[in-house]
Amino acid sequence: MSELRQNIVYKEWVIIAKERAKRPHDFIDNSPKLESDKEYDESCPFCPGNEEKFPHREVEKVVDESGRWVLRSVFNKYPALSDGAQFEWVEKDIFRTISGYGVHEVIIETPVHNTNPALMSADEVGRVIRFYKQREGEIIKRENIEYVVIFRNHGYKAGASLVHPHSQILALPIIPRDVKHRVEEAFKYYSDHGRCVFCRVIEEELKAGERVVIESEYFVSVVLYAASSPFHSWILPKRHSSRFSDVTDEEIKDLGVHLKTFLLKLYKGLNNPDYNYIIRTSPVSYGRNKYFHWYITVVPRLTRSAGFELGSGMFINPSIPEEDAKFLRGIEV
Amino acid sequence: MSELRQNIVYKEWVIIAKERAKRPHDFIDNSPKLESDKEYDESCPFCPGNEEKFPHREVEKVVDESGRWVLRSVFNKYPALSDGAQFEWVEKDIFRTISGYGVHEVIIETPVHNTNPALMSADEVGRVIRFYKQREGEIIKRENIEYVVIFRNHGYKAGASLVHPHSQILALPIIPRDVKHRVEEAFKYYSDHGRCVFCRVIEEELKAGERVVIESEYFVSVVLYAASSPFHSWILPKRHSSRFSDVTDEEIKDLGVHLKTFLLKLYKGLNNPDYNYIIRTSPVSYGRNKYFHWYITVVPRLTRSAGFELGSGMFINPSIPEEDAKFLRGIEV
Repeated sequence: MSELRQNIVYKEWVIIAKERAKRPHDFIDNSPKLESDKEYDESCPFCPGNEEKFPHREVEKVVDESGRWVLRSVFNKYPALSDGAQFEWVEKDIFRTISGYGVHEVIIETPVHNTNPALMSADEVGRVIRFYKQREGEIIKRENIEYVVIFRNHGYKAGASLVHPHSQILALPIIPRDVKHRVEEAFKYYSDHGRCVFCRVIEEELKAGERVVIESEYFVSVVLYAASSPFHSWILPKRHSSRFSDVTDEEIKDLGVHLKTFLLKLYKGLNNPDYNYIIRTSPVSYGRNKYFHWYITVVPRLTRSAGFELGSGMFINPSIPEEDAKFLRGIEV
Repeated sequence: MSELRQNIVYKEWVIIAKERAKRPHDFIDNSPKLESDKEYDESCPFCPGNEEKFPHREVEKVVDESGRWVLRSVFNKYPALSDGAQFEWVEKDIFRTISGYGVHEVIIETPVHNTNPALMSADEVGRVIRFYKQREGEIIKRENIEYVVIFRNHGYKAGASLVHPHSQILALPIIPRDVKHRVEEAFKYYSDHGRCVFCRVIEEELKAGERVVIESEYFVSVVLYAASSPFHSWILPKRHSSRFSDVTDEEIKDLGVHLKTFLLKLYKGLNNPDYNYIIRTSPVSYGRNKYFHWYITVVPRLTRSAGFELGSGMFINPSIPEEDAKFLRGIEV
C-alpha cells in the first residue's frame, strides 16, 4: 500500500508509491549522457585557451602558482537577470513588472573539460565551495539583492547543455514565494518549540539511522523521509547556521570530502545520473537567525513530472527512501 | 533586457528572459513522439476487445446505441492511492504518515487508439469533460476526500507512457500546500477588493487583447502574462464559479469546442508538442465561494526545469507571452 509522508520542515506531503515502487538498482541510468572523452575541447567556451574565442565578462578567478586559472567566474552571456539593469517596479493595472535587475554568474569549476565533482579531488570540490561563499559574499553587498540561488545542473535532464563542469549563481531582487514559505514554516516551528526544526531532523535522523547516507565531522547527508523523487537528499551542517556564507574553512574542508563522496556514490551506483544540487540559505534580509538552517539539496533526475505534480505541487515518488539510502551506503567509493 | 512579471492571482514571479528569448516557431517540437498509426493495437491495455487480456476494475462507462463503450473509467492498476486503504494518520516523532487512502482512476477517452483531443470531434471532447464532472461528483461523496486533481498527460515529456488517449483523476485525503496557497491568495484579493481576482484578470485580459488566444461564448483562453513556460495558458469560464463540478451542460458544449480548438492550434502550430492540462478547482471543503474561480491550465512541455527552478520555485520563460499568443491566434484550424 502507498503512503503519504510529510516533510516536517515544510509541511509538504509526498506520495511514496509502494505499489509501483522500484528497487534502487532499477534507477541505474542508461540514457545518453552529456559527456566527453576530451580533457580539452576547442569548441568549448569554458576551456582554458578559448577565452578570447568565446569572450565573457570575467568576474573573478583563482590562479595557481604558474598564473593559470583553476577556477573562474564569468557573467552569463545570455543572463536571465543583469546587473546592467536598474531596479524598477512598474505597475499597470493588474500587470506588475520588475526590470530584469540581478546577477547571473557562471562558475567554471575546473580547467578540465571532461570531469565533474564526483571525479574531482575533495580539495578541488572544497575550493569550488569556498569560491561560492566568496562570490555570494560579494554579490549580497549590492543593493536590491534579496535572494541568492547557487546551483549546479549536471546532465541534459537536469537542464545542462555544456559538458564543461560549471555551476551558476542567480541573485534576485525579490524573495521567491517558495523560499519565503520555507523560511516561514521554519519560523513557525521555532515559535512553537523553541528550537530549529532542521536541528531536530538531524537529531532524529541520526538516531533512526536508516536514511543516513554519510556522516562526517561537520555534515550529515540523508535521503529525505518525504523524498519527492528517488534519492532526493539533503546534506546538512550539524552546527546550526542559517546562512551558507557563515560556513567556516574547517567545515568547507569536510564538506568537500562529503559532497564529493556523495556524488561519487551516485555516479558509481546509478551510472552517472543527471542531477541538480542547490544551496538553500536564508534570504539576505533575514540575516543570522535561529530558525532557518542552510543545506544542500541533491535531486537526481530519474523520473518525469506529470500533470499530477503540476496540478497539486505534490510529488509521487516511485521508490522507498530507506532502500535508496541503504543502496547508497553500500556503494563503495 | 529581461523582466520579472508577477502573476497577480498567486503573487508568483517569473523571469521573462528576453535576452535569450526565442520566437514562437523556434518551439516547434521535432522530438520523437508517443504516437501510433494503428486505430487498434492488440497490445494496448485500453483498446476495446482487450478488456479481458488486460483486466481493470471498471468504475463506469458510457455506451453507444449498439452497447459498445465509447468512454470508460477504470481504477489505475498501479494506483498512487487506493480506495481499499483506510484513512489513518500515524505520527512517530517527527515522522508523519497518512495511509495511501484515495482514488486513482484512468479515464479512457475514446475506443480509438491513435487519436487525441486535438483530432477528436468537439462533441467527443465535450463528452470527456462531462464525464470528468460526473466522476468528480461521485468521488467527492466519499469520506476524507479533500482535493481532486483531474489531469491529462500528453506525450513522453509530459509523463505519459501509453499512446491510447486517457486522462487521470487523483483524489487526495489532504489539501496540498500549493493548492491551499492558491486559494488563500484568491481569498486575500477578495478581502482587499471585494471581487474575484480571476474575474478581474478576465476583464483586463479581454481589454488588453494581446494575450487572448480564443474567446468563445462562455470561455476565454489566454497565454498568461506571467507564463512560467512557453505557451503556458489558462482556459477560464467567464461566469464566476469556484467549482468545476458546477459547470453547466451549455458551458460544457462550448468548452468542448474551445478546448479542442486550443489543442488543435498547439498540435498544428508546434507539431504535436507534449503537454499537460489540469483542471484547477476549489478544495472540497471550500464549497461554492466568491473568491476562487476554476479553470484549466495548459502547460506545453517545451523546456526543461533546472537547478534554478528547483532552488527558487520560480521559472525562467525563454519566450514572450504576447508573441506566443499572437502565434496561436494565427494558426488556422
